[in-house]
Amino acid sequence: MKHLPHLPLYTDYYQLSMARGYRQNSKEDQNAVFNYFFRDLPFDGGYVIFAGLHNFLHLIRHYHFDEKSLNYLSQQGFDDDFLEYLSNMELSVNVESVQEGQIVFPGEPLVTVSGPLLQCQLLETVLLNQMNYQSLIATKAARIKYASGSRKVMDFGLRRAQGLGGIQASRAGFIGGLEATSNVWAAKEYDIPPGGTIAHSWIQSFESELEAFRQYAFRNPDSTTLLVDTYDTLGSGIPNAIKVGKELEEKGHRLVAIRLDSGDPVQLTKKARKMLDEAGLEYVKIALSDQLDEYVIADLLDSGAPIDLFGVGTRLVTGHESPALDGVYKMCEIDGRPTSKRSDDPAKETLPGRKKILRLYDSAGEYSGDIICLNDEADKLIDGAIAPADIAENLPDFTDFQLVTHNVCSNGDCGTDWDQAITMLRQTAQNELKRLPGRFKRLKKPERYPVWVSKGIQDQISQMKI
Amino acid sequence: MKHLPHLPLYTDYYQLSMARGYRQNSKEDQNAVFNYFFRDLPFDGGYVIFAGLHNFLHLIRHYHFDEKSLNYLSQQGFDDDFLEYLSNMELSVNVESVQEGQIVFPGEPLVTVSGPLLQCQLLETVLLNQMNYQSLIATKAARIKYASGSRKVMDFGLRRAQGLGGIQASRAGFIGGLEATSNVWAAKEYDIPPGGTIAHSWIQSFESELEAFRQYAFRNPDSTTLLVDTYDTLGSGIPNAIKVGKELEEKGHRLVAIRLDSGDPVQLTKKARKMLDEAGLEYVKIALSDQLDEYVIADLLDSGAPIDLFGVGTRLVTGHESPALDGVYKMCEIDGRPTSKRSDDPAKETLPGRKKILRLYDSAGEYSGDIICLNDEADKLIDGAIAPADIAENLPDFTDFQLVTHNVCSNGDCGTDWDQAITMLRQTAQNELKRLPGRFKRLKKPERYPVWVSKGIQDQISQMKI
Repeated sequence: MKHLPHLPLYTDYYQLSMARGYRQNSKEDQNAVFNYFFRDLPFDGGYVIFAGLHNFLHLIRHYHFDEKSLNYLSQQGFDDDFLEYLSNMELSVNVESVQEGQIVFPGEPLVTVSGPLLQCQLLETVLLNQMNYQSLIATKAARIKYASGSRKVMDFGLRRAQGLGGIQASRAGFIGGLEATSNVWAAKEYDIPPGGTIAHSWIQSFESELEAFRQYAFRNPDSTTLLVDTYDTLGSGIPNAIKVGKELEEKGHRLVAIRLDSGDPVQLTKKARKMLDEAGLEYVKIALSDQLDEYVIADLLDSGAPIDLFGVGTRLVTGHESPALDGVYKMCEIDGRPTSKRSDDPAKETLPGRKKILRLYDSAGEYSGDIICLNDEADKLIDGAIAPADIAENLPDFTDFQLVTHNVCSNGDCGTDWDQAITMLRQTAQNELKRLPGRFKRLKKPERYPVWVSKGIQDQISQMKI
Repeated sequence: MKHLPHLPLYTDYYQLSMARGYRQNSKEDQNAVFNYFFRDLPFDGGYVIFAGLHNFLHLIRHYHFDEKSLNYLSQQGFDDDFLEYLSNMELSVNVESVQEGQIVFPGEPLVTVSGPLLQCQLLETVLLNQMNYQSLIATKAARIKYASGSRKVMDFGLRRAQGLGGIQASRAGFIGGLEATSNVWAAKEYDIPPGGTIAHSWIQSFESELEAFRQYAFRNPDSTTLLVDTYDTLGSGIPNAIKVGKELEEKGHRLVAIRLDSGDPVQLTKKARKMLDEAGLEYVKIALSDQLDEYVIADLLDSGAPIDLFGVGTRLVTGHESPALDGVYKMCEIDGRPTSKRSDDPAKETLPGRKKILRLYDSAGEYSGDIICLNDEADKLIDGAIAPADIAENLPDFTDFQLVTHNVCSNGDCGTDWDQAITMLRQTAQNELKRLPGRFKRLKKPERYPVWVSKGIQDQISQMKI
């Protein structure tokens, strides 16, 4: 993302034409507040793992309309006053956000961008583009890891990823809990462990499968995974892998694993395990790839398939059955006036005012419910002037509460706190998932995590409708 | 794509570890041939529009392992001999390919990459990443245009696109037939017409909807589309748009359109049309956005919804129900020896040998079927030594045939022929779609376009199985 030249043009055309309109109407510095939130949980799941903030803050830091961008806009008919304004503009927005790796729910104001109206408007598209997709994939990865239990899962998705989105997929997949990626570019950029095995072409390039196995294994005697399905899995692939495994043993090394990429995975992995064990290669692991996702993995393990490692591609990096998170970025306040979009369709209405997310938890630290409240309410809660029960009814049992969002950018200055090692973000997701009760984490038909809209917000909505 | 630094690292890790293995075994210069093909038609449709070649050839042109890439690989344990080899490597591959915008079918060798084994291997991931996704989206766009008839369709998808994949989505969508994109970055990069309307935030930033409409329309008196669903579509949005439309008329201008983004589109557009017409604004168009795809558009038009322009986002740029084309890149010849992957799963077997695609057409120029044949067979056909009926049985009526692929890169030199204006590629798709009979273009349950595998290839397979 940060490498893209002409970065401010990575936006929708109407953001620029509205920005010009704000400038023409002397509205560019009106004090605006926007919220990012999503409406529906993807994968019919129970939660979302938030991700994508890093790339958004990088954009803020590198935001600059260069000459080529301005020339292009000039060719599109944008006037000189506006272009000069853009060329001199320094971002002075404030950003309050959930951390990457945190668990979030529908309707919650995950990110609040406030500051000059024109600037807030220009940032909409890239915020949505990065956070919608990365949150989607971090969530998918967490579900896949949930199904896989303690087994290692690798991202093999780059070849089927949606163009350059593959870069963000590998980042988000790691945050969501995967162990490694095949995507070398992303591995380098984000410090993710790279990994991979061998392809059918390696096998085909040799006169025989056995020779292909030997040449790879003897050069990489302690790190080889052999792909056994190029010609005949049971008839030649596994027997040849066993032969080479024994040859490695004689030289004091160990074959790491075999990989299956086609055929009936339950039958083949069971037979493979038996063949390996009978040959004394109990330590050789079995890796599986081939159109895997959380449902397939859960079924395979339910069927007792002895698989140690999963390579997940297409269905991880595309989000498969829910290929987009439906996040939006809506104005909630302008010059101190709360505002919302109303709609014939209640699902498209938005919540007015500056808001925060409050998370309740029990004595074991497990999350029991969230409240979306006004900033004023949150301040009073933190001061102890009021209690959660004063702003929302029928709350569950809880011991304490915390605010979920934090300030990550003040007056255009994002500092460096947010630029954490990706292993920290991954750890955040692991910790969060531990605190979310199992009934919200089930792959199918999870319970709906309770989220209240505070009395203050509801009063606000009522007043606006009068 | 071409702006990405460390471009050769945009690959799967195993490509590099296999490349090292080829080098260690002195196999780097073995003469290899790989085919790119897909197995299943996306969207249960009848065809695919090929796209993504441009970005692949750009990569070949800019392919270079820079120092940072080599340092990273060194840290990952790659040896100095291999890294030095990479740093001095100049691509010398040959590429034969279908043109962007051409119609293609399952199993056909769309792209043939031949040359040194090591080089062919390293190019796999990026070829798949670009061609799978761009072909998917060009196809989706063509289907959406098919449903929309003569109505204009714009790409509004960037905010829901899968990260930076949004760039390739806009390119491929235009090739597939859309008229414009909201994505300014892609518009500049690929010379696509940019476009857009206004957002709810523009309306909300003013004290009243009417004032918001006026301020935008009077500044853009001949290019305004007003978004009418911020508060109350029928009660205020359309009446206010009509008021401003009449005020523009008085000053000699014309409101271009109104846009609806929520609510029941059939009822609302019918009522909107009636209200506009009764006010004498018959020329004001109606634009619709909100979770559109080819099926929704076809239903809306069947219901008589008077819509002139569609804005399509999420479901275009993600490919929605089929978010990945399942293209693969398989070795078919090594050092003159035909090779194929066999499998317990017949769908995963591949065709051996150097191949071409032959397309049969009737006297009206309409396509009637394709033959996948060996290069030798194609040469004899072109020389007139044999006829199509000599290499495939039960062919349909046809008048003539043509070869579908062309050489686009010789010995690493891609020339410039392929670097066509994007409007030309879009025109190719239009021309191709005209030549494809309607029964293969239906949105639902299209007929299966016939593709034969030549006798030469079948003989080859039989010989290899002996």
